[in-house]
Amino acid sequence: MSLLLENIVSELNRLPGVGRRTALRLAMHILKMEREDVAAMTESISEFRNNICHCAKCGNLSDSEICEICADTKRDRTTLCVVEQVADLLSIEKTRQYRGVYNVLGGVISPMQGIGPSDLRIDLLLDRIAMGEVKEVIIAISASVEGETTLFYLMNCLKRFERLKITTIARGIGFGDELEYVDEHTITQALINRREVDKNR
Amino acid sequence: MSLLLENIVSELNRLPGVGRRTALRLAMHILKMEREDVAAMTESISEFRNNICHCAKCGNLSDSEICEICADTKRDRTTLCVVEQVADLLSIEKTRQYRGVYNVLGGVISPMQGIGPSDLRIDLLLDRIAMGEVKEVIIAISASVEGETTLFYLMNCLKRFERLKITTIARGIGFGDELEYVDEHTITQALINRREVDKNR
Repeated sequence: MSLLLENIVSELNRLPGVGRRTALRLAMHILKMEREDVAAMTESISEFRNNICHCAKCGNLSDSEICEICADTKRDRTTLCVVEQVADLLSIEKTRQYRGVYNVLGGVISPMQGIGPSDLRIDLLLDRIAMGEVKEVIIAISASVEGETTLFYLMNCLKRFERLKITTIARGIGFGDELEYVDEHTITQALINRREVDKNR
Repeated sequence: MSLLLENIVSELNRLPGVGRRTALRLAMHILKMEREDVAAMTESISEFRNNICHCAKCGNLSDSEICEICADTKRDRTTLCVVEQVADLLSIEKTRQYRGVYNVLGGVISPMQGIGPSDLRIDLLLDRIAMGEVKEVIIAISASVEGETTLFYLMNCLKRFERLKITTIARGIGFGDELEYVDEHTITQALINRREVDKNR
């Protein structure tokens, strides 16, 4: 095989979810792209890798020291939502319903993967809360074993802030989910957290 | 969203099979990669796009004017296999059973997609055969409507070479295929092309 082809295939093959066959298909697509489009693509990759920062206040990805959300004076700084990763923050932002700020932990506590509390942005979170502006912390981390461990750890850290309200996002049946296929734990939670329906609605 | 993040996501999103969610996942992976590894990856992409050639003899991808296969004096130049694309050539090479040379058409005739005979490397094929060295042409293009059209067109071009043997790869039931799920056309061909079993084997 041509060396240039072998190189691009091996390199793309290192990306998650890209096998050698997919890498070859991507290479063939790249061959058909305009040179300037390929240059724009490789440049966006290099620029991203070399210049992106983590926001000094919340850990979100940012072009500068403070991210757009933390810099936005219109956001409600009394409400702070704790998420695992930037993708989760983006999902919440997409709803356009949340107007508070965030803390991006950067993962969850996982002894199996060697991730301890000091690997997460918990200090950043505690420092921000200690400044006194935050009134409510919404914990929006996944309901896995690691997520629950992290929640437990966070609760321990946060309990010293006596006037701080701490909430977690509701667990329940998602829109479009079929009850038949939902796990028991979720159904149990959905039953416990049932809401009364307004008869006059 | 950060501009740098928005850029890399939009650029990766242009690749086939990469939606915005996958692009975001790739970006997060790239962020965790070493800078030099990211540089090696983007370089392999640029180098491939800017320096790869099509072999002047067969159309295969090549680092130089003539590809490794055409340049290899140990290959049998009396047998030439016609394939649609480089990926097909690579699949045949992987078997290590074929020792002849190739012609990579670069597609099949498809009026729907505006691909006519002049868009394929048919002239290159005819020129090579006209030189007289080739004794057999194996046509290994897909059995689709476009493939059959292309085969018909090629047969018309090749019939003037009276002493040239023309073959197509065998159609039949693949190893591991279950007869129950194989289409009728393939089964018909497999029946017509049935082979006698040696009783003494």
